Amino acid sequence: MNAVEIIKKKRNGGELSDEEISYFVKHYVKGRIPDYQKSALLMTIYFNGLSDKETLAMVKAFIASGETVDLSHIKKPKVDKHSTGGVGDKTSIILAPLIACCDVVVPMMSGRGLGHTGGTLDKLESIPGFRVHLGIKEFVNILEKLNVCMIGQTDDLTPADKKIYALRDVTATVENVGLITASITSKKIAEGSEGIVYDVKVGNGSTLPTYEKSKELASKLLQTSKDFGQNAVAVLTDMSSPLGYAIGNWVEIKECIEIMDPAVKNSEQSADLIEVTLFLAGAMLEAAGKVSTIEEGIEQSRKMLDSGEPLKKFIELVKTQGGDIKYIIDTGSYPAAKYKDTITAGSDGYISKLDALTFGLAAVNLGCGRKTIEDKIDYSSAIILKKKLGDAIASGDVICEISGETAEKVESAKQMLLKGIEITETKPIVKSRIIEVIN
Amino acid sequence: MNAVEIIKKKRNGGELSDEEISYFVKHYVKGRIPDYQKSALLMTIYFNGLSDKETLAMVKAFIASGETVDLSHIKKPKVDKHSTGGVGDKTSIILAPLIACCDVVVPMMSGRGLGHTGGTLDKLESIPGFRVHLGIKEFVNILEKLNVCMIGQTDDLTPADKKIYALRDVTATVENVGLITASITSKKIAEGSEGIVYDVKVGNGSTLPTYEKSKELASKLLQTSKDFGQNAVAVLTDMSSPLGYAIGNWVEIKECIEIMDPAVKNSEQSADLIEVTLFLAGAMLEAAGKVSTIEEGIEQSRKMLDSGEPLKKFIELVKTQGGDIKYIIDTGSYPAAKYKDTITAGSDGYISKLDALTFGLAAVNLGCGRKTIEDKIDYSSAIILKKKLGDAIASGDVICEISGETAEKVESAKQMLLKGIEITETKPIVKSRIIEVIN
Repeated sequence: MNAVEIIKKKRNGGELSDEEISYFVKHYVKGRIPDYQKSALLMTIYFNGLSDKETLAMVKAFIASGETVDLSHIKKPKVDKHSTGGVGDKTSIILAPLIACCDVVVPMMSGRGLGHTGGTLDKLESIPGFRVHLGIKEFVNILEKLNVCMIGQTDDLTPADKKIYALRDVTATVENVGLITASITSKKIAEGSEGIVYDVKVGNGSTLPTYEKSKELASKLLQTSKDFGQNAVAVLTDMSSPLGYAIGNWVEIKECIEIMDPAVKNSEQSADLIEVTLFLAGAMLEAAGKVSTIEEGIEQSRKMLDSGEPLKKFIELVKTQGGDIKYIIDTGSYPAAKYKDTITAGSDGYISKLDALTFGLAAVNLGCGRKTIEDKIDYSSAIILKKKLGDAIASGDVICEISGETAEKVESAKQMLLKGIEITETKPIVKSRIIEVIN
Repeated sequence: MNAVEIIKKKRNGGELSDEEISYFVKHYVKGRIPDYQKSALLMTIYFNGLSDKETLAMVKAFIASGETVDLSHIKKPKVDKHSTGGVGDKTSIILAPLIACCDVVVPMMSGRGLGHTGGTLDKLESIPGFRVHLGIKEFVNILEKLNVCMIGQTDDLTPADKKIYALRDVTATVENVGLITASITSKKIAEGSEGIVYDVKVGNGSTLPTYEKSKELASKLLQTSKDFGQNAVAVLTDMSSPLGYAIGNWVEIKECIEIMDPAVKNSEQSADLIEVTLFLAGAMLEAAGKVSTIEEGIEQSRKMLDSGEPLKKFIELVKTQGGDIKYIIDTGSYPAAKYKDTITAGSDGYISKLDALTFGLAAVNLGCGRKTIEDKIDYSSAIILKKKLGDAIASGDVICEISGETAEKVESAKQMLLKGIEITETKPIVKSRIIEVIN
């Protein structure tokens, strides 16, 4: 077996054997196959795809490249959720403590913001002191104690995926359903989850270009997880406009705290976020075997959310992972960004477009995300929606607030956002965020 | 402009601009774009091809990466020939001195054996002392003196092509008509040729899999050379069985010497080699403007060959490039390989198959070529055809002789060759080697 022959076989449309995939991944991780051969193979996969059999072999090879988390001694169901990434997509912050309160273990490994999409790790790190880099031992200890722990991918888990992902990013080989599937599922299996809910975003704020591609990814994620014995559910949700009212890092944590706090009346602008969160929670409880239908799970989750227990759990989690809870207790005390501006309506009518991609890119420009790996995030920078899709608006009303660390950043974000907002005379039809459930 | 965006554009089916191609080539050669991005781009080109405009831009970028040979002070036509590679394909050894005798300058830069195909440089190096690595200055000096010089690609000429070719070889991105065209034509333009004859091989001993691919390559080579103002002709020739009687290194030089020596009666087994050589010679004289038709050129070449002048020129060339001429004068004195065996016919009939690919691979195994870059060539090892396609044969007659440095190598070559030879009862139709001329 040699690297060039394997590349040639895949290039010519052949199906790689388990041995060939394992050979390539193993030798690449050990540095015996160079980056240039791996990137050539990745590009052949971009063009020719990965069969189900090849995807499975790749997942196995990724898992075999590192350690796995053993949670078998914890006699509770273990369930995680994975989102393919969106704008204002902060459901994990509520879901993790909420499901943990339902006597289900949530071993959640999240990622950072990528392109125009936000990342759970960045949001958590807006809480001063919060540690997302824990070893496997501490991860398991916290899961035993709290039923929940929220961390980043450790170096020990699926190192092959980590190394290959970094290469895909710089060789234009990210956007392939097979490679995305292998990357996601390998981590979710290695982290010890028995059940998994995939939130696959659809629309221009998502990472895939079309509904068909999102659906293809959802099916492939589901199939691969099931092949490994996981209880899996995939939910296609709409990501054509930002989810909830907050886009940024700290403000997204704040929106979640408000939703979890029964003493606070939720903002009308959070309605879609709550809808998606409860639906995913219902699916997670179903995947955990706690309920027999998603609807039943949604009911149970709603009650749990109203009880205030998830907020207590979240505070405990923040404390355990080293975070300063004073801002959780008093969200108003968090330092505000220095510069602020607003976008107001130029005419009466209804909000007919809040373009998710534009909002995501504007947020990155504002400092909420990174353009290069070295960029520092401004945790206080934010875009706050005062109006949502379909809302009636009068000329002069505030549509959104923008806050950032420099006047230039705020102005640049404003100029971008203006192109992503539309007002029409007739009220647009606003559909549910939940498009389709696949299981 | 950045590398990932350029890869993505080509991957998505876009046409790269001249600036994008020049940027990528220039920065790659200078080490500012890494191998893994270049190999990813090469694989997108493998799948999406190169348009004529892109090919031209790539040729320009290759030429701009190094020096060019200026032959403008030599007031004679300058013409070269390039073969896409075959088995027993030794026409260059005769063509270079022959055309030089017709008052045409032949600045010939050749390559080494690749895969199952032989290389002119390896054949020349079977002559003890023959130097194929000369600087541009010495190359020009010899051309001024002899009208001909035969060397390898210098480090100064099209270094981008050299670096990219090495990468293509290890990333399964060799077999693409656009990339092959850019690689070949850039060298032929940079070496100072005004006219060029392409011998594009067809059949299983060639480097392209189908007649259509060979024809596509011929057209693209022709078009690109013409775009650069060269007088170009492409000849499609048959490479389904070995050309001439000798396959090896020294034995191929020997076969050429015999053809050039009027005192020696040519072997019947050299008839097809002489046919192809004279046809290419005719095309070269036409490209040089010395004759108005290939037929006229063939006539003139035949007369020149019969005169014995080409052999004198060849001896002068060998002497000038440091080679020992004693073996040229007395070919029988060259050291023979230690072990010998023959393949004989098992039945009466006609030779209906001498599979070129099989003969090429067997020759490499025998030591006539390299399997890895470190392999040493056995210059005396050889396969000598005693019968050619269509020849009548009686049971027990010798079909070919095999000689090599170890008994194992000879036996292994024999086993391979047995599968590439067929005898039938009826006489097969043997067509001309010249399939088609494109100009």
